[in-house]
Amino acid sequence: MPDTPPRPADRPTGLRTIAWQHLFTPEVVAVVGATDTEGSPQAYQWRQARERLLALGARAVHPVHPTKDTVDGVPAYRTVSAVPEPVDTAVLLIREPLPVLRECLAAGTRFAIVFASGFAELGTEQGDRAQRQLARIANGPMRVLGPNTNLNIYEPWAEGLPGRKIAVISQSGNIGRPIVQAEALGVGVASWAPLGNEVDLEFADFVAEFAGRPEVGAIVAYVEGFKDGWTMRLAADRALRAGVPVIVIKVGRTEQGAAMARAHTGHLTGNDAVHDAVFRQAGVIRMEDIDEAIETAGAFCHSAPVTGRRVALCVMSGGTGSHVADLCGQYGLELPPLAPETSQRLRSLLPGYLHVDNPVDTGGVATSRPEGRAVLEALMDDPATDVLLAPINGAFPGLSDAITRDLVDLHRRGPKPVVAVWTSPVRDESHQALCAAGVPLFHSFRGAVVGIRAMADFHTDRRTRPRIATVSTVRRRTTPDLTRPGIRDERESGELLRAYGIPVLPSQVVTSAGAAAKAASEVDGPVVLKALSPDLAHKSDLGLVITGVTGADAARAAYDRIVATAAERAPAARLGGVVVARQVTDAVAEVLLGVSHQHPFGPTITVGLGGVLAELVADTAFGVPPFDEEHARWMVGQTRIGTLLGGFRGGPAGDLDALVTTILRLHDLVLDVGHLVSEVDVNPLLVRPKGLGVVAVDALVVV
Amino acid sequence: MPDTPPRPADRPTGLRTIAWQHLFTPEVVAVVGATDTEGSPQAYQWRQARERLLALGARAVHPVHPTKDTVDGVPAYRTVSAVPEPVDTAVLLIREPLPVLRECLAAGTRFAIVFASGFAELGTEQGDRAQRQLARIANGPMRVLGPNTNLNIYEPWAEGLPGRKIAVISQSGNIGRPIVQAEALGVGVASWAPLGNEVDLEFADFVAEFAGRPEVGAIVAYVEGFKDGWTMRLAADRALRAGVPVIVIKVGRTEQGAAMARAHTGHLTGNDAVHDAVFRQAGVIRMEDIDEAIETAGAFCHSAPVTGRRVALCVMSGGTGSHVADLCGQYGLELPPLAPETSQRLRSLLPGYLHVDNPVDTGGVATSRPEGRAVLEALMDDPATDVLLAPINGAFPGLSDAITRDLVDLHRRGPKPVVAVWTSPVRDESHQALCAAGVPLFHSFRGAVVGIRAMADFHTDRRTRPRIATVSTVRRRTTPDLTRPGIRDERESGELLRAYGIPVLPSQVVTSAGAAAKAASEVDGPVVLKALSPDLAHKSDLGLVITGVTGADAARAAYDRIVATAAERAPAARLGGVVVARQVTDAVAEVLLGVSHQHPFGPTITVGLGGVLAELVADTAFGVPPFDEEHARWMVGQTRIGTLLGGFRGGPAGDLDALVTTILRLHDLVLDVGHLVSEVDVNPLLVRPKGLGVVAVDALVVV
Repeated sequence: MPDTPPRPADRPTGLRTIAWQHLFTPEVVAVVGATDTEGSPQAYQWRQARERLLALGARAVHPVHPTKDTVDGVPAYRTVSAVPEPVDTAVLLIREPLPVLRECLAAGTRFAIVFASGFAELGTEQGDRAQRQLARIANGPMRVLGPNTNLNIYEPWAEGLPGRKIAVISQSGNIGRPIVQAEALGVGVASWAPLGNEVDLEFADFVAEFAGRPEVGAIVAYVEGFKDGWTMRLAADRALRAGVPVIVIKVGRTEQGAAMARAHTGHLTGNDAVHDAVFRQAGVIRMEDIDEAIETAGAFCHSAPVTGRRVALCVMSGGTGSHVADLCGQYGLELPPLAPETSQRLRSLLPGYLHVDNPVDTGGVATSRPEGRAVLEALMDDPATDVLLAPINGAFPGLSDAITRDLVDLHRRGPKPVVAVWTSPVRDESHQALCAAGVPLFHSFRGAVVGIRAMADFHTDRRTRPRIATVSTVRRRTTPDLTRPGIRDERESGELLRAYGIPVLPSQVVTSAGAAAKAASEVDGPVVLKALSPDLAHKSDLGLVITGVTGADAARAAYDRIVATAAERAPAARLGGVVVARQVTDAVAEVLLGVSHQHPFGPTITVGLGGVLAELVADTAFGVPPFDEEHARWMVGQTRIGTLLGGFRGGPAGDLDALVTTILRLHDLVLDVGHLVSEVDVNPLLVRPKGLGVVAVDALVVV
Repeated sequence: MPDTPPRPADRPTGLRTIAWQHLFTPEVVAVVGATDTEGSPQAYQWRQARERLLALGARAVHPVHPTKDTVDGVPAYRTVSAVPEPVDTAVLLIREPLPVLRECLAAGTRFAIVFASGFAELGTEQGDRAQRQLARIANGPMRVLGPNTNLNIYEPWAEGLPGRKIAVISQSGNIGRPIVQAEALGVGVASWAPLGNEVDLEFADFVAEFAGRPEVGAIVAYVEGFKDGWTMRLAADRALRAGVPVIVIKVGRTEQGAAMARAHTGHLTGNDAVHDAVFRQAGVIRMEDIDEAIETAGAFCHSAPVTGRRVALCVMSGGTGSHVADLCGQYGLELPPLAPETSQRLRSLLPGYLHVDNPVDTGGVATSRPEGRAVLEALMDDPATDVLLAPINGAFPGLSDAITRDLVDLHRRGPKPVVAVWTSPVRDESHQALCAAGVPLFHSFRGAVVGIRAMADFHTDRRTRPRIATVSTVRRRTTPDLTRPGIRDERESGELLRAYGIPVLPSQVVTSAGAAAKAASEVDGPVVLKALSPDLAHKSDLGLVITGVTGADAARAAYDRIVATAAERAPAARLGGVVVARQVTDAVAEVLLGVSHQHPFGPTITVGLGGVLAELVADTAFGVPPFDEEHARWMVGQTRIGTLLGGFRGGPAGDLDALVTTILRLHDLVLDVGHLVSEVDVNPLLVRPKGLGVVAVDALVVV
């Protein structure tokens, strides 16, 4: 991170250009630390590197060794600079890579792959220092992959698998391995990028590259933490525009996982709920486990787009129908009634005791006969549904072989996407046939439902989102001075909010009981008196807020009470006077609205249920600017504020539109001055009945 | 269900005894509807039945056919009564089974298996009537399996698989199939009961039977709805005492699933959250999907007990460590520090850059060497952890073969349970070796973590629960008249609660402003006035509750205001006067406490956040009597009431013990008169500071 972060609105919206061919298909490679000493890991790695790179079309793979003249009979060089031709990629198997990297940089090497451990993942000052030195070298024209990485990028992949392929990005070889073994399910692999500590080449670079390859149908990533939240978003945006889904398994839901991630590749995992919000904004699909991720990725590669959430479910037993219908309900898929013409066709095909609504239950009786195929065809043609889901369950030859044949045919014929579920641990020839034909295939009902939901989201709302670059312009406002660091009191905080058009309740600051009385008498209706201090959070818990004060005498008394209470209960707090403001009596909801800095994304907006209950219910949602109005509405809907504003228990509906507008005004504030402000806390923001707007009653800004 | 339900405290605590040998290993079987007409399903079923039953040791399998003299050369009988020897089990393949069942009953047949559909699952009056007729026949000495079932009970199972086996109970053959195919993972099957519509033989009967078989290590059930909530609990209790876990996939989380279940076997799914509560009370393990269920069941069959939640995690890569550590945190497993002697052993085995805390990262380098084995042995001996979890991930021969050999050895040697995870879709010889040896094996990290959690819960808290029978005695109290049906007003409702020792705020009912003034002046401090009516729910929203009334004049005015408001806003409601009561000013939390009837369990207690917020937050927990104090405490802890009572935002702690006692008193009320009361609603019950107890402020009882 640079020392002075840029104004958020001025962040670059492009990604760097990389001459990838020198890494992925290098002509000349130097392997530093290559040896033919039997039993040493370096000998294994050198031989593997040479074999794979030559197979990939490399012209020369040169061993570099300080003393040997040849390695495995191949002429060796003492140093990288001694190699008599330009090196596309240097592979560094050695333990102390820094001096050799400097030499590579000087010799004009284009890429270096660094195996060594002992950097940021140590969590020590020494490790951090080594990583910083490495980062300085990587600041030049040479790109560096690693450290703490390997040669997964040059593995050979199976050929002849159907359709598009997955590209894999992982911060762990061991987790990446079962992902690339999706080949066994008929899902081809286009490439595998092992990120290691990401001193230079990072997640975003590979996403941008893979999203541009026509053979890639999905990107699957295992991520402990993002090096840079902004480039990650730009890369995700590019993939979204290219129609390539990015499926991420992201560590860091819990403290245990976060601690281990830090020890593994030195990554900070960050606030998990903020990641979820950014994934939603960026169209990134988060998955919990490897099976879900590879099965969903395979379905994306092999399937026509799923253009809606309406599932036609065809089962061979009512029990499967009940179970899958339940999961559909749970994960937000619909089982709408089939079109009338479909139901009619089905009724003529199936006996009367079977269910021809959605789900359609063939009872197994029709499966191996022409009627079974006709049922599937009717569902394929049904105009009221978007995807055909067909669980096969057991490997039960009479039934499973027949439906497999039909599904393979229908998948090839199209146009509606077909999804099969094979829940049995027995994987027979029919299972193999589904894989070979590229029929989207899941091994659990839950996986299938989660996967279909992900596809439907991606092909409908995710891809229609406005792009990150189109919403990141905002004009500069005149604000209070934001150079002096520290906490600002209510008055100054209010000024900043007003500068961006956020309504703040008019108030007067008074410093005598007489002035309080005068201020109160100028207001029509009851007033609130409140201590003014940058040092006090829960003012109402301390008795420093008095509501329902009517008339001059009451105001005078309330003033004296606040001053006395402050002296007694918070003697150390600076008291800048007492605020007198009209009491808002028609609030439908109390909302909290805040800004905080969240690694690795920067200033982040929080919206949540406000008031005394905020802490009890902990009902908040996040958005990282830039985002659009749709996301602002989603944030509100994620919390119970939406329920309150809808007219709760017979009360009036609240001004939802004004709340959304206010979130977007805070969003402008963040884009303009988010780099200068470390925290904004508006609590409560009162949402009044429809048409009457919102008003901030208390606000705190930390610069 | 009988017409007059019994007093809950008097429900039977025993299960019926069934002469199972006549069903599972019958000597003489009659197959009604047997035929040798090629291509007919009955011919297939008859041949399959005969072959399987003879293989199981049946002496005779007689075809019964109205016109044929022989079927497949076997002498046939015209009717069941014509069979010249006592029939253990009659298999009815025919469409109209009722007349034949009557004949079987008359002939002394012990069991009948009914294939026919067309009963309650139709959801029609005709179907329900047919099912009632069937139920009347099954009320005699003959036991009936089905209708809407099949011959899964006689399937042959693989032999030679390691250790204990699973018993399967399913309401669907199609869902049961992938469960019994767990054989492919080395998990043997002891039996499979296909329940169908459960007109007679039900879930509970089979659970009780299977739990008593020594070869059964786990019962796995697919259930759409329980026929009888009480027998289900008794059977689960018996299984718990026998140490046999019951793992259930239960449909009905959503409306979609519930509707389909009704159409499949005519079962009502019931309130899902109540089922979760009963599962917790009964020690039943609920799983979401087939893969999780069979893998966990297999682990129970093959593993030594997991006696705690402390996991020793051994990975070959930090990435796997981060991911699994994260999932452990998410699902409530601990990764505690290893014992110091273990860490020392590990440090001597692994290079300095690898993590020897928990998780232990061998980096793969040690795996194929003696050090790899020594690392696993050190973890096996570690006294600070309860289970060893070893993810294998990819099928990567150099590593996966070596660790597989070690895990098989350690699993055999014991004593600590060993759990392996194979996340790759490639299933090679090592995978097969793990299955053959019965090493507890999962195919997703999530599955492994969920499974270990289930085992730890079962072998620690679940099995130490008090038994259902020991808490189901309660003495009879003198209560208000509960024979007259209808809604009771606040006064009568309060009387019923007081009869069971639940504190109710003393109050007076007044019917004039003068009487209100008098009542208010007798109370020290402010009072609350409230309309008394059995017809009004949200009284405060209607303006029919006035708080903070001090002195006679204010009381008089408040009385008049309530009467006027009631006349204006609820003219149809019966107004029985106005209640005057002391205002409780020190409540720490407002709680709602209720009783409702929940299919199929009967009267159920709800506890939740009370007051105006109850509906917004919808924060409730359930318990179905009988339950114990531990469950009552759990109910409170499931909601945010626990947080409030812990001393929220610097406030005083609330009287949690008094709240728990009150739940248990309501529990006594339910056991005594729950069959007479259809609804109890105490809202709010105020919980005062520690030592000051609780008090019900408003209550409503429906008889």
